[in-house]
Amino acid sequence: MMYGAGDVRIENVPDAALQRPTDAVVRVLRACICGSDLHPYHDRTAADEPTPMGHEFLGVVEEVGSEVATLRRGDLVIAPFAWSDNTCDFCREGFQTSCRHGGFWARNGVGGGQAEAVRVPLADGTLVKAPVGEDSSLLPSLLTLSDVFLTGHHCAVQARVDPTTTVTVIGDGAVGLSAVLAAKRLGAPRIILMGRHTSRTDLGREFGATEVVAERGEEGIATVLELTGGDGTHTVLEAVGHRPAYDMAVGVVRVGGVISRVGVPQYEEAPVGFGSLFGRNITLTGGPAPVRAYIEELLPEVLDGRIDPGRVFDRTVDLDGVPDGYRAMDNREALKVLVRP
Amino acid sequence: MMYGAGDVRIENVPDAALQRPTDAVVRVLRACICGSDLHPYHDRTAADEPTPMGHEFLGVVEEVGSEVATLRRGDLVIAPFAWSDNTCDFCREGFQTSCRHGGFWARNGVGGGQAEAVRVPLADGTLVKAPVGEDSSLLPSLLTLSDVFLTGHHCAVQARVDPTTTVTVIGDGAVGLSAVLAAKRLGAPRIILMGRHTSRTDLGREFGATEVVAERGEEGIATVLELTGGDGTHTVLEAVGHRPAYDMAVGVVRVGGVISRVGVPQYEEAPVGFGSLFGRNITLTGGPAPVRAYIEELLPEVLDGRIDPGRVFDRTVDLDGVPDGYRAMDNREALKVLVRP
Repeated sequence: MMYGAGDVRIENVPDAALQRPTDAVVRVLRACICGSDLHPYHDRTAADEPTPMGHEFLGVVEEVGSEVATLRRGDLVIAPFAWSDNTCDFCREGFQTSCRHGGFWARNGVGGGQAEAVRVPLADGTLVKAPVGEDSSLLPSLLTLSDVFLTGHHCAVQARVDPTTTVTVIGDGAVGLSAVLAAKRLGAPRIILMGRHTSRTDLGREFGATEVVAERGEEGIATVLELTGGDGTHTVLEAVGHRPAYDMAVGVVRVGGVISRVGVPQYEEAPVGFGSLFGRNITLTGGPAPVRAYIEELLPEVLDGRIDPGRVFDRTVDLDGVPDGYRAMDNREALKVLVRP
Repeated sequence: MMYGAGDVRIENVPDAALQRPTDAVVRVLRACICGSDLHPYHDRTAADEPTPMGHEFLGVVEEVGSEVATLRRGDLVIAPFAWSDNTCDFCREGFQTSCRHGGFWARNGVGGGQAEAVRVPLADGTLVKAPVGEDSSLLPSLLTLSDVFLTGHHCAVQARVDPTTTVTVIGDGAVGLSAVLAAKRLGAPRIILMGRHTSRTDLGREFGATEVVAERGEEGIATVLELTGGDGTHTVLEAVGHRPAYDMAVGVVRVGGVISRVGVPQYEEAPVGFGSLFGRNITLTGGPAPVRAYIEELLPEVLDGRIDPGRVFDRTVDLDGVPDGYRAMDNREALKVLVRP
């Protein structure tokens, strides 16, 4: 439970239980802490109601409602960071984060993933089965299909990364590194990673980054332009969300290119006129990743080891260790913290 | 020549003549006045140097430089609104408006199209031959391949309009109506045209608009949402360029949809954050249309009469009538003025 800025506590809450016939109860095997969890960790005040936390988890189905057709007790399942019916027109168009009947974890009476168990609404639409056991060594990588890797994937897909596009990734957090891996998987021949933390950018190189630029702001833009003959790259994957990252993206994108954002913007207005986007036919895209749309496609590649996105986890805690996990991510001691209840 | 706001004069200038071996001289058969010509018509001051005007024309090749390989005296040619080598990497990627060696009419020693003749730089790359005679009734429609129709086409292409996408077009000027025709041609099943001038929206209906919304601002947004079950349309083609048009576009675009702009933005900053674009995965695209990339594809359809985009011209003037033409477009007495030197 998040009480206020920097104040995360482990509490006993009523057990997760079926409320509707379309619900399932899932016992959590693995969860994790997201960079976006750090926003309330910085901003919440004691005046806010305490809230459950966590929107990334996988686990085992313990119980299903009478209308759940595709799941049974004992199934190991991945939960996307948004729950959805997966049948409405928005879902069918691939935007399950905007499902007409869906929602998000840890709000409106639905629990969070940093817990022992979670009630999952619209379980048939939301959950995806993974054919592995509870002791599988693949659980960390499978967990990244809940959010972080597929958020990087969405970023690259929306940017239309392919073997003809050069790429700049802004941000060396877990999403930025996931975007590197996703761009590599889609065939990008050149991936410039902008980040300052060597331990992270080293993993970025292993994921496929061909160059690393440590400078930021105007200096970072100048370095990327220098590397690209003054032109920038066809696509820019922006995995930070702060306004300076937007400005860097505009600075390093090539004529006719795409800026794709998955870092939740911590700003509302930004330049979009002739001098920034319009004059050079730049496209701006991105948003909350509808990961549900991608899980089935990427699952086989995780299962057969072709990709190993779980390498972004560099620390593991149990539930009692979650407050320490927040501290470690906030201090940048940890890249991404795995929670093993 | 444009002297200042509202001050357009016809003057004798030195004859267009070859300067470089890659030049051609083209005698202008048809030119026209663009909505964007009205910006300097409003804003210029007497302190600015007088400038030639016009960036849309077709004509007959009178003379070619020694290095021009594909054109001969007597060829009837269409000139895109930007000149380009059509061979550099930006051109090959389809963004001739950003050609590494190209430029725009009526600046840097290159004349404007509202004239008797024009020196055309990089003639092999810039000009496209049309197999018609000087007296062809197709000249007005062919002239729209110089800018206005292909600007509407670029808007629809960038928005990825296809038979599955519903469309809202913002603006009933010549570009907006061209965007309607382009969206119809690409198979859009539903095209809502936002415009207040009945004579124009009537042509919009003939071009393919299925509904017309005369309201603007919040009221206009509410009407489009009402027509679309509260959801808006998959694509919004914004052909105005003022900030209220941007805000309307954000208001009527559907989850996961695309806003495509071709009206030159008269603003630099605009909302792009969670509440406007990001939260619903909206893509923002568009820019100056690289019409050169599209002429060969659309030319046959104009030649065989499948499309008749020249219907946007509702007044014809000779060179002496150009000042009156500006006045008529500025007063909205004329939709688009054809110039016949």
